[in-house]
Formats: sequence, structure tokens, C-alpha cells
Amino acid sequence: MKTTRFGMSLDDELLKHFDALIDKKGYANRSEAIRDLIRDLITQEEWKVSDKEMVGTVTLVFNHEAHELSDKLTDLQHNFFKNIVSSTHIHLDHHNCLEVLILKGKSKDIKTISDKLISTKGVKHGKLVMTSSGKNI
Amino acid sequence: MKTTRFGMSLDDELLKHFDALIDKKGYANRSEAIRDLIRDLITQEEWKVSDKEMVGTVTLVFNHEAHELSDKLTDLQHNFFKNIVSSTHIHLDHHNCLEVLILKGKSKDIKTISDKLISTKGVKHGKLVMTSSGKNI
Amino acid sequence: MKTTRFGMSLDDELLKHFDALIDKKGYANRSEAIRDLIRDLITQEEWKVSDKEMVGTVTLVFNHEAHELSDKLTDLQHNFFKNIVSSTHIHLDHHNCLEVLILKGKSKDIKTISDKLISTKGVKHGKLVMTSSGKNI
Amino acid sequence: MKTTRFGMSLDDELLKHFDALIDKKGYANRSEAIRDLIRDLITQEEWKVSDKEMVGTVTLVFNHEAHELSDKLTDLQHNFFKNIVSSTHIHLDHHNCLEVLILKGKSKDIKTISDKLISTKGVKHGKLVMTSSGKNI
Repeated sequence: MKTTRFGMSLDDELLKHFDALIDKKGYANRSEAIRDLIRDLITQEEWKVSDKEMVGTVTLVFNHEAHELSDKLTDLQHNFFKNIVSSTHIHLDHHNCLEVLILKGKSKDIKTISDKLISTKGVKHGKLVMTSSGKNI
Repeated sequence: MKTTRFGMSLDDELLKHFDALIDKKGYANRSEAIRDLIRDLITQEEWKVSDKEMVGTVTLVFNHEAHELSDKLTDLQHNFFKNIVSSTHIHLDHHNCLEVLILKGKSKDIKTISDKLISTKGVKHGKLVMTSSGKNI
Repeated sequence: MKTTRFGMSLDDELLKHFDALIDKKGYANRSEAIRDLIRDLITQEEWKVSDKEMVGTVTLVFNHEAHELSDKLTDLQHNFFKNIVSSTHIHLDHHNCLEVLILKGKSKDIKTISDKLISTKGVKHGKLVMTSSGKNI
Repeated sequence: MKTTRFGMSLDDELLKHFDALIDKKGYANRSEAIRDLIRDLITQEEWKVSDKEMVGTVTLVFNHEAHELSDKLTDLQHNFFKNIVSSTHIHLDHHNCLEVLILKGKSKDIKTISDKLISTKGVKHGKLVMTSSGKNI
């Protein structure tokens, strides 16, 4: 693929922090790290177009004994089964569960499903990661 | 403040999307937009990592054909197999993959593994969600 | 040899499919077909279970709406959380679920957990694959 | 759902073994165990109709370092990405991997993909579980 080279300037102080950070993270060079930032920015922007087909993952931590939560979350997920590709469940201990869902569909639908899951009573922690199908980045 | 100028390269396709986006957002130029991304990155990095046992999920989007990436990512993951509980792979299309890893361990170890995976050349998009084992929340 | 007679019940839908199948296969009657199934089951059971560390996968198909099955299966799995590495759930349609569990541990423990899951009322179909950790093969 | 009751006879010796087995497996009664056998029989029979939409899981054990196997298996899977719902990877140790794929599609296609994966040089052990979408059982 054709690439274009361009120059940019950065305050020395910021550059020092940036270089230390990309070294710690293991990036080969500044270009590589900045490309990742740009791809992330484009992905977050694509999410704002509510009809765009996107991919998301939802991480949930909950106590499966509370509020018949397993049944509730399973019921809820089946209402949206066309958008939920898979769901991986880890039994953290006797009480706590980690569930990671992979969703495909319109960004507004993924957000709706994610909101419903995370706001369910008994879910202790939940986060949506908005990513893409990789086509435009 | 002293500033330093350096060059970077970007795929034309990605550059086109980036230019359209910074225009829409009202940035004066590319440098200005990239500086904001870098400042945001540094801010996010400031959350504490520690010896506390945590659970994390890493979401990766990549083209499996680039740079023998499947082999590289699998090799990398096996070096940390004790921290990686499972990894779910979705074949998005002929080229693009979504991989979601579930990690357990000290938050600094989870962070290190996640940084290494996300900074690997060929990984288009990556995000870490750090959560807890549910015991204290 | 002495034989014993006992009664059993079957959903009409399932019975219809069963009758068509045994007719196609040429069995004289239901008893004859069921006897074959039971003999096959007993034969399969004869493989050795031991204290050897093994890896197993259990595939389950069930209707999540029946008998609060999601809650039951999750409770059951948490009792054995140390042996269950992960569990992937696919929402097949509004009613039916596929769940695939990955287990590690002594083969007798894997067998016990698998038996309990598959024999749970409401589980329509279940299969255990016993494999090894790859070290000796 | 309407159920029908019918009688069947079994040799005492076989019945004794069967009763011991279903007790060990945790079935509530004989009917429950026989229903499972019948559902399994119907599922296996459905697999013989090559155009029927079925669900299958493939369990693979392999050494990821041999023969660039991760790359090969990922390439192979992407050729059939429409049939592969998800694939879960467990890093068993520094060398050995367990991969469990969930497949949907025509039974002949699932069998073809499974055969190709299991016969790939370097795969140490592989098994296909043929199950169904749960609709007819």
C-alpha cells in the first residue's frame, strides 16, 4: 500500500514522555505508535454514526448467585441473539463470574445491548470496548 | 518551550480518513491533532499499576495475513500462558480477526502483556479493560 | 434370562421422530432400539478414568428457558470452578443455547463434572471429548 | 408439551448395569436417561443428511511452534469463516495449545472443515462433536 511521509513537531517535554511511554509499551518507533492512536481515533469516530456496522466487546463481572442473574443475563442476551456472536464465561471463584461478550451490528444496537447488560442489578462492573471490523483502519 | 520536528509515515488510505476527521473536528493541522492524541495517551497511562490481583480483557483487531501475525501473537501469548486464561478468536472476514483474551494476575503483568500485544506491528486496534475479581466491589 | 418391564414417557414430538427412525433402521420395536442404545452407552463407559491430568471439552445444547437451566448450570459449574477453564456460550436462537466448556484436571473429575452437566434435566444433548495436555502425544 | 407413556422390557443383567450407570451419572430416573440416548440418536442421524443445518464443535490439541501451525490453522479457518462462529484457544503450556471451534452450517461442510483441521500436519489430536441447533430434539 502507498504511504505518505510528513513532518510534525512536538514540545520537547511531551516528546520525552512519549518516547519513554512507547519504549515501555514496546513499539518499534514513533510512527507505529502514532498510527495506533490515529486508528483508535477513527474507530471511536465511526461509532458515532449509529447505523454503521461495528464490532464491540462487553466485559461483565457479577455474582451469579444474586438476583438469579445468570438466568436474567441469558434471557436478555437471547433477545439480541443476532447481535451476540459469542459469550465467554470464566468462573472466577464460587461466587464471582467474568463474562465477555462479542457483539456485531449497528453501533447504536451494540450500545443499547451493552447498556442493558451493564445496568442490570447485580452486575458489579461492566465496560464496552468499541472496535471495528478492521476494514477502514 | 523548545520543540522538536520529526517525520512519520502513514498509509494513504489511513491518511485520507485522518485528514477528513481532523478537518471535521476543526484542528489547524495534523501536528495539532496528533499532539492531542499523545497527551490523551499519557494521561490514560497515569492510572496505577500494582501487585494487586486483577482480571483484564484485551480486545485485538488484526489482519492475520500480515507479518505472520497469528504465529507472532500465539508465540507471545505462550510466554505468558500462566496469566492468559483463554483467548477467543472470531474470523470477521477473509482477512480480519477479532481476538479477545482474558487475563488474570498482577495488574502490572496484565498491563505489560496487553502493551506488548497491542504494540505488535500489524495489530490495527487494541484495548485493555482492567476489572477486578469481583471480591471487593 | 429374566427380563423386567418398566414404563417410560416421551414428548410426542420426540416420539414421532424416534418411531420414524427405528422404522427406517428396521428395529422390530422400541424396546429393541432402546436396548441397543443402552448397550452402546455401557460399552462407551468402560474406558478407564484415572488420576492422570487430562483436558476435556463438554458440548451442551439446551433451552435456557426450561427449568431455570442457566442458573442451575452456572451454579453447578461454580462448584467445580477450579476444573473449568472457560465456557463459551452461543445463543443459537431465542430458545436454544450451545455451551462449550473446557476442563482441566484428573480424568475422573472431568468425567464426573461432564456427567452431572449432561444428565441435568433440560439439557437436550451433551458430549464429552477427553483429550490430553499434548505432552505425551 | 404432550407426552406419551409406553412400556419396555430389559434383561435383568443389563438393567442392573444401566441403573448403576444412570445413578453414577446423576440422572433423576430411567426415562430421563433414555430420552438423552434417543435425542443423541436422532442428532447423529440428522448429520447423515448432508444439506441439513447443524452445529458442531471441533477440539484440537497441537504444538503451536511446529510447522507455523498457528498461521496455517488461522489461514485455513478464514477460508471457512462463514461457518466458524468462534474459536477458543487455551495456552496449555509453553508449547501446547487447545483450540475449540464452534461451527454452524451444512453437516457436510462442517465435516469437511473438521477433517481438514484434524488432518493438518502437527495437530496431535482432534475430535468433532456433532450436535444440533436443538430445534428437533
